[in-house]
Amino acid sequence: MEEQPGEGETLRPGYKIWLEENGRVFGEGIGDLLEGVSRHGSLSRAAREMNMSYRQAWGLIRMVEDRLGYPLIHSQAGGGRGGGSHLTPEGETLLRKFRLFHKRAEAALNEIFGDIFGD
Amino acid sequence: MEEQPGEGETLRPGYKIWLEENGRVFGEGIGDLLEGVSRHGSLSRAAREMNMSYRQAWGLIRMVEDRLGYPLIHSQAGGGRGGGSHLTPEGETLLRKFRLFHKRAEAALNEIFGDIFGD
Repeated sequence: MEEQPGEGETLRPGYKIWLEENGRVFGEGIGDLLEGVSRHGSLSRAAREMNMSYRQAWGLIRMVEDRLGYPLIHSQAGGGRGGGSHLTPEGETLLRKFRLFHKRAEAALNEIFGDIFGD
Repeated sequence: MEEQPGEGETLRPGYKIWLEENGRVFGEGIGDLLEGVSRHGSLSRAAREMNMSYRQAWGLIRMVEDRLGYPLIHSQAGGGRGGGSHLTPEGETLLRKFRLFHKRAEAALNEIFGDIFGD
């Protein structure tokens, strides 16, 4: 939608938040993917929901696991129900903490912004 | 430097903060450029310090001014001392508020991170 300069919108804060350890390691992307695994019990369904290939999703998780030094998901191949993937306890804890960090950070940034830029 | 997975570093927060108005409008880049103009009284010197061409720097400032709807710098061409550029009062105010927002946001994010991820 075209907007006139200086009209139709007011100034607001923008931000992106992630975690670093041996480089950028955990952000919205891996967070959403792990949440999908948790919800569906399946990495391939979680990947599809994010328009990623299974290979991409698996590669992302392995890269993050390598940097962190511990597993985030465990997968069972085959079997009567065709296997599945679940978060490890460490994966669940990290996801929960990241979500909390993100939520509290968002609230703090909005409050600080209001203090400084509010009329 | 190569690091072993999970060693040599601990988890820490990462973030990028900016202002939005009709799109992403004001962040570190334009902030540093305006600070350089304020320090040097010269857009070309400020640009050079950031390894930008004068044209790039001028284009960035015009884009931000268009989105905000007010001028950030005013320039005097020629004259005995070869002209120069200075921040407008609105430009000074915005830069000062952005720096304060950034500083307070950084402190808040570190504190929240420590609360959640600290041992």
